[in-house]
Amino acid sequence: MKNVLLKHRSIRKYRSTPIPEEVLHECLEAAARASTCGNMQLYSLVVTRDEELRRQLAPCHFNQPMVSEAPCVVTVCADVHRFTMWCEQREADPAYDNFAWFLNAATDALLAAQNLCIAAEAHGLGICYLGTTIYTAGDIARILELPKGVIPLTTIVLGYPAETPELTDRLPLEAVVHYEKYRDYTAAEIDELWAEREESPLTKRLLEENGLPNLARIFTERRYVRKDNLAISASYLALLREKGFFNN
Amino acid sequence: MKNVLLKHRSIRKYRSTPIPEEVLHECLEAAARASTCGNMQLYSLVVTRDEELRRQLAPCHFNQPMVSEAPCVVTVCADVHRFTMWCEQREADPAYDNFAWFLNAATDALLAAQNLCIAAEAHGLGICYLGTTIYTAGDIARILELPKGVIPLTTIVLGYPAETPELTDRLPLEAVVHYEKYRDYTAAEIDELWAEREESPLTKRLLEENGLPNLARIFTERRYVRKDNLAISASYLALLREKGFFNN
Repeated sequence: MKNVLLKHRSIRKYRSTPIPEEVLHECLEAAARASTCGNMQLYSLVVTRDEELRRQLAPCHFNQPMVSEAPCVVTVCADVHRFTMWCEQREADPAYDNFAWFLNAATDALLAAQNLCIAAEAHGLGICYLGTTIYTAGDIARILELPKGVIPLTTIVLGYPAETPELTDRLPLEAVVHYEKYRDYTAAEIDELWAEREESPLTKRLLEENGLPNLARIFTERRYVRKDNLAISASYLALLREKGFFNN
Repeated sequence: MKNVLLKHRSIRKYRSTPIPEEVLHECLEAAARASTCGNMQLYSLVVTRDEELRRQLAPCHFNQPMVSEAPCVVTVCADVHRFTMWCEQREADPAYDNFAWFLNAATDALLAAQNLCIAAEAHGLGICYLGTTIYTAGDIARILELPKGVIPLTTIVLGYPAETPELTDRLPLEAVVHYEKYRDYTAAEIDELWAEREESPLTKRLLEENGLPNLARIFTERRYVRKDNLAISASYLALLREKGFFNN
């Protein structure tokens, strides 16, 4: 148990071996046992195994090979549609077409997603979350035919690993944990928290490859550029409106 | 492992027994091993054990007794502040003050939160997520002194259980899982998915207590009322702006 949580690494190379039906089922059952807002289960998990469909999804994830190579791609969606349908069929007046319910549904969806991943890893499967999902959420919604009230949040690639990567480094625990209240960082503390990572051989290699003077600039100039961040913000907000999460 | 995931129940009554330091530490370590966007760890966990501070937080959670009774309250926050500070100290130009980065940070935060909960349950602790966090996020932010770039998403109450509730029912798995694409529900399918719950003794008792004709109307007229949903949406969006997540 502890080992499963402490030894997570994202897997980016997969064997094509299919996931046995009962293993997948157990992982999905684990997802459905996660905490959920008022027991409303405001999420849907779209499990795509069809090769042609995975090929259609691949460009939404910048054609990362794992999307077509791994046997299973799970698109994790906030979903108020199902609950709203039920309310309407009972002549109750649902009011879940607003931002608060995007937050509730997103929370439900992500807790379920993490349960799915942990169950999968306990079964010897590898997983990788695809952050690209929010970049291209509109395209994904079209391919998967998501109705109003349903919006993609993240994607999980699932399958048997064809690599055994090293454990990724993390910031020291005191970087992310605050006791009692939020204790703001001094400049010296920030330096100290990132020191080990900045001095690592991996960082040195990245700086050489990118011709940049420090790791932070690899993030801001190569990986997550202002122009892209603003475009993603605008397109996701537009999709939230289109999917009916902004009738505030 | 499987048992931990499949046997989760939210605990609402706690013993006051403190959580041993090393147990809490292991749970926080597990949180920090969760998948994170670009290994940026865009979240903070504010661990509040001080009694007076928990008493201050209690009204933000509608004075549910568990907030002051349980020995530990963890406020789970999306946090781009720490990463932004680092970038600024390295003369990199951070652009994380926008909605896309709220989404990335919220995803990081919630995956870490769920790891924390699973680790806690594996240690025999009980947990409960408090959805009230988004209702009163502004007050929580003031009490915990959250800077710009940091916003509360959910709260976890943590401690040794003083109750052993039954496993909560869930919708049949086919309600939340779609294969290949999203397969929209027929009215008959919606009826079927909710049938067992609607016929349960618990539902019958709730209907009597509330004087309402069906379970859906308990949700729409008692638990999550339109007026409140809209007010929460407005206040959380205002806080997102105040905390600098809307410079799109």
